[in-house]
Amino acid sequence: MNTNYFSKTIPMKQVTIKDSFWNSYMELAKNKIIPYQWEALNDRIPEAEPSHCINNFKIAAGIQEGKFGGFVFQDSDLAKWIEAAAFSLVWCQNPTLEQTIDEAIDLVASAQQEDGYLDTYYIINGLEDRWTNLKDNHEMYCAGHMLEAAVAYYHATGKRKLLDCMIRLVDHIDKMFGPEDDKKKGYPGHEVLEMALMKLYAITKEEKHLNLAKYFINQRGQKPLYFELEQEENNLSFYWKDSYFQFQYYQAGLPVREQDEAVGHAVRAVYLYSGMADVARETKDDELLQACQRIWANMVHRRMYITGAIGSSSYGESFTFDYDLPNDTVYGETCASIGLVFFAHRMLQIHPRSEYADVIEKALYNGIISGISLDGTKFFYVNPLEVVPEACEKDQLRRHVKPERQKWFGCACCPPNLARTITSLASYIYTQNDKALYLHLYIGNESMIDLSGVNTKISISTSYPWDENVTIKLSPARAIESTIALRIPGWCRAYTICKNNVEIAVTKDLIQDGYLLLHDRWTEGDAIELHFEMPVQMIRSNPMVRANVGKVAIMRGPIVYCLEQEDNDLHLDWLKLPSNPRFSYHYEKDLLGGIVIVESSGLKLEDQSLKEASLYECYTKDIYTEKHLTWIPYYSWANRNVGEMLVWIKTE
Amino acid sequence: MNTNYFSKTIPMKQVTIKDSFWNSYMELAKNKIIPYQWEALNDRIPEAEPSHCINNFKIAAGIQEGKFGGFVFQDSDLAKWIEAAAFSLVWCQNPTLEQTIDEAIDLVASAQQEDGYLDTYYIINGLEDRWTNLKDNHEMYCAGHMLEAAVAYYHATGKRKLLDCMIRLVDHIDKMFGPEDDKKKGYPGHEVLEMALMKLYAITKEEKHLNLAKYFINQRGQKPLYFELEQEENNLSFYWKDSYFQFQYYQAGLPVREQDEAVGHAVRAVYLYSGMADVARETKDDELLQACQRIWANMVHRRMYITGAIGSSSYGESFTFDYDLPNDTVYGETCASIGLVFFAHRMLQIHPRSEYADVIEKALYNGIISGISLDGTKFFYVNPLEVVPEACEKDQLRRHVKPERQKWFGCACCPPNLARTITSLASYIYTQNDKALYLHLYIGNESMIDLSGVNTKISISTSYPWDENVTIKLSPARAIESTIALRIPGWCRAYTICKNNVEIAVTKDLIQDGYLLLHDRWTEGDAIELHFEMPVQMIRSNPMVRANVGKVAIMRGPIVYCLEQEDNDLHLDWLKLPSNPRFSYHYEKDLLGGIVIVESSGLKLEDQSLKEASLYECYTKDIYTEKHLTWIPYYSWANRNVGEMLVWIKTE
Repeated sequence: MNTNYFSKTIPMKQVTIKDSFWNSYMELAKNKIIPYQWEALNDRIPEAEPSHCINNFKIAAGIQEGKFGGFVFQDSDLAKWIEAAAFSLVWCQNPTLEQTIDEAIDLVASAQQEDGYLDTYYIINGLEDRWTNLKDNHEMYCAGHMLEAAVAYYHATGKRKLLDCMIRLVDHIDKMFGPEDDKKKGYPGHEVLEMALMKLYAITKEEKHLNLAKYFINQRGQKPLYFELEQEENNLSFYWKDSYFQFQYYQAGLPVREQDEAVGHAVRAVYLYSGMADVARETKDDELLQACQRIWANMVHRRMYITGAIGSSSYGESFTFDYDLPNDTVYGETCASIGLVFFAHRMLQIHPRSEYADVIEKALYNGIISGISLDGTKFFYVNPLEVVPEACEKDQLRRHVKPERQKWFGCACCPPNLARTITSLASYIYTQNDKALYLHLYIGNESMIDLSGVNTKISISTSYPWDENVTIKLSPARAIESTIALRIPGWCRAYTICKNNVEIAVTKDLIQDGYLLLHDRWTEGDAIELHFEMPVQMIRSNPMVRANVGKVAIMRGPIVYCLEQEDNDLHLDWLKLPSNPRFSYHYEKDLLGGIVIVESSGLKLEDQSLKEASLYECYTKDIYTEKHLTWIPYYSWANRNVGEMLVWIKTE
Repeated sequence: MNTNYFSKTIPMKQVTIKDSFWNSYMELAKNKIIPYQWEALNDRIPEAEPSHCINNFKIAAGIQEGKFGGFVFQDSDLAKWIEAAAFSLVWCQNPTLEQTIDEAIDLVASAQQEDGYLDTYYIINGLEDRWTNLKDNHEMYCAGHMLEAAVAYYHATGKRKLLDCMIRLVDHIDKMFGPEDDKKKGYPGHEVLEMALMKLYAITKEEKHLNLAKYFINQRGQKPLYFELEQEENNLSFYWKDSYFQFQYYQAGLPVREQDEAVGHAVRAVYLYSGMADVARETKDDELLQACQRIWANMVHRRMYITGAIGSSSYGESFTFDYDLPNDTVYGETCASIGLVFFAHRMLQIHPRSEYADVIEKALYNGIISGISLDGTKFFYVNPLEVVPEACEKDQLRRHVKPERQKWFGCACCPPNLARTITSLASYIYTQNDKALYLHLYIGNESMIDLSGVNTKISISTSYPWDENVTIKLSPARAIESTIALRIPGWCRAYTICKNNVEIAVTKDLIQDGYLLLHDRWTEGDAIELHFEMPVQMIRSNPMVRANVGKVAIMRGPIVYCLEQEDNDLHLDWLKLPSNPRFSYHYEKDLLGGIVIVESSGLKLEDQSLKEASLYECYTKDIYTEKHLTWIPYYSWANRNVGEMLVWIKTE
């Protein structure tokens, strides 16, 4: 592996997002989701199921009497909230919020046991049973999320209290699990601790933290299988016993280095792969990296929806098999697309290849923000690409698909995951290595970044994803020679680039792995003007995808479009796109928070009054008549009336 | 209601099937299924799960020690076996088999309790709990099947032992359940006893037998709901508590007279509707008949597959909603199509309308016999219309769909149900009322039927469904004047009819409700020659069926065709039928037991080598090249190598 390729991210503190598209989402996270979730964690939302989360910590800390409430992984809800809140502080200071977090951290700390152990489920229900069911009882998952929260809060505020607590918990875990003879050979049932440990290691540089992450990665799937041993020893039930999953649900069917496919529970999977990529990068482990690359290729080229959704089946919220991408029974959990971004972001730090950033962009602008309503109060867990409301109600195979976003979930993983992703967006825009500063996402921001040893202000202004232009202003403290690498989006077929309004001839040698490498001398006020042509594009699937044979999807720029009943009447399945449709588009300020609408010619099957007649008739050729079609961005669907929705449309 | 329309069936003893198509199935039933099942019931099949059925009866009779084994409804397996075996005796005497049945009946009788009660599950596990869970514990279901067996054996042999036992059981049930204040207000959780009681009533003419059937029909779904009362009283669990089903699973959500739709568990549903039709006919109950007609229309015009399969979802093996007919995740239980035939047959006895016989024919030649392999040893429970073997293995939503027939099921309902249907085929061919003898099915047979008071030999010879010609020879003992009503099949667009080789001009007034009424004077040796044109037909669905928009199915005569990978290579979903395909067909004696193969021109999507490339690409128009297609009868699929199968093909 060429170590030159390793990149670092730019600390969030140096990047301030100022973006017409994303700022409103960040405001939602800050003003709506984070405060709302705090109320939820404290069981103060009258119409919602109680979370029990804060209560559990109080009981564990001995401040209060009572029973454990909620899921076995309930602690993680507070962790994700702290993490999101910490990220939001970086972007926008808020002493009141910071004080609330401090109080929450005090509570967490007071629940921690002498020996460093922390998990309210077992503290309340009996410590004698702790660490007996790694497979399903989420102790390491909760530890991982709380460790991520601690790292985020430390970076945001410099405060170490939670970080130190979590280091004690990690030390406790390290004493229990590892390769040594006196330790158990376990690893997380639900992954996340692996990548959390790597974040910790980046701070502490303590070998034991790295080693524990490595151990979890390497031990996973080794024979004899820990989850089997644990099952026998503790007489545990095994939900997936008769399933085709078996231990693949946990990505533990094989040692990770022997894995080739994205398998099992999709969120677990991408969290594991993220940890694998972290360890591969840090330890320059070619074999592990190759496993990451094989799994990446399998997932992205065979098991990912056009929206960046992953997880084809509600059964185990899981991957199924190659090219199995049903649009109507899909799972496509919001959290899974978020985890996909984590994985892509880590692959990008190993090799700056635009395919990784393309997937980040695809997921962010489509399958992730589809998870939240435009007013920030309702959420999708499942992100379908085709919806018939009646079927969601009356067909068990689609009962997990909701035609409208829900207020809050008992298993509230997606809303806080969305919040922490949106609030940490600044960390996804750039990476930097000794060769160049890579600009991956065209999100407006103002940043202070060291270029060739010189503190440089970089301002990006754009109305992306609606507008084709991006302006990058560089203001180094003094003139510098440096390379700026600009991602040419995968969706882009034609573009121009100017420096100070003078077009640059883009020759082949300027392009590397999907980036345009601009090596130049930069002085105060230099501007790079990018123009990405954004025509409406018709996209086809690989014909191996049965669900999409003979169909197309519509994109403009990174945005995937969809048809809603609201604009196109009932029976979206009766629509067809002519093979040479006329497209137009325009920005509508007042619709769905401001979107570019796409309009097209279309065809609609004539209702030949078979409706009330026979179910089966002698064939007569279908008659199609012209029908004007109105397309809206996929992420913005289900923000008006409940109705049908469709991404993939039949074509002539 | 015009009582003139009521028809009776012709006793099976008077109708001997001699049919090139069906005799082989009857031989299979007689020589394979019935003997095999007897071994299975006795736990003598080494590789199969034990049935425990005979054992349970022995334990209940005190002949043997042990625990109850198998499902709560295990007794019904013996009942269905006795019924099928009894039917087979009518067709073909077999003293050894008759003796085996007699011994089985002795065993059943010795298990019966003093008070008439009979259900080995409760006899073994404790009679104190009997009749406490009508909803799920199948006592009335077992009683119903055993009563049907008793009736069949009585008709076959004149022997009353089992019949008398069952009359005692019915009397016991009658003491427990009914409108009187001292009786419980219950009814069967799984219907079948209703129609069994009507068969009993036809023999006994005892009002109490009719009244009990009427009571079960009328009480169903009345508030307060018996199943709810029973649940509370006995602290029963309710599997469908959070389901959209609730009590609709049992067709008990509403009183039956208020029902408009085919709902819930499909087998239960059609068994109920059959009982409803029986009672409506016997009691001339217009309101009840109208409910039957509404439900019939809903089921047949909105919820039935082209193969006669019903039950769109594996969830509750149930109906879902109008026009929801997915081809790949379908349930389509063999038993449900059999029950559909029961219902249709009863509607036909009320009104001789060809729509009922059309459905019987459709189900018999397609969705029912698809349930059995050509060698009679393997069975489908589920009858899909589109199969991708990999998906059946790796997608939970299709795990119930098997790409090959299975040897024998733990829940062995379909094989004996197939056996009793095939062996009783003779009862479906004719009905008779004071107006005419109706010929519903063109199945070769020799019969003795009273026409206008004269014993008449009727011989039908045909190579239906492969051949277009049917010859009906009438040999009355003396010349008679009588009406023969010949069904014009729903699939038939053109036909000719001759009497003694002289064509008859078919005028409109000769046609009534889909039957050609031939009123004539018949003498010894008269022949009616029917010629139904059997071109290959392209069939379309009502466009409300989302799964079939833009697709067609192929039929010839009553036979639905399908494509198999074996003949058409992988990727059946890449095939398209041109809008004017060229069709040809020919009989292949040695293929799949002798079938008419259909061949057609076709188109296949070119594999544009996207296979190993991107999942999503800029649209280029699909390129289709010519591809010869070979179609086989749907029922004969999965008798060669495992592979893809498809009924509905895309069309240009």
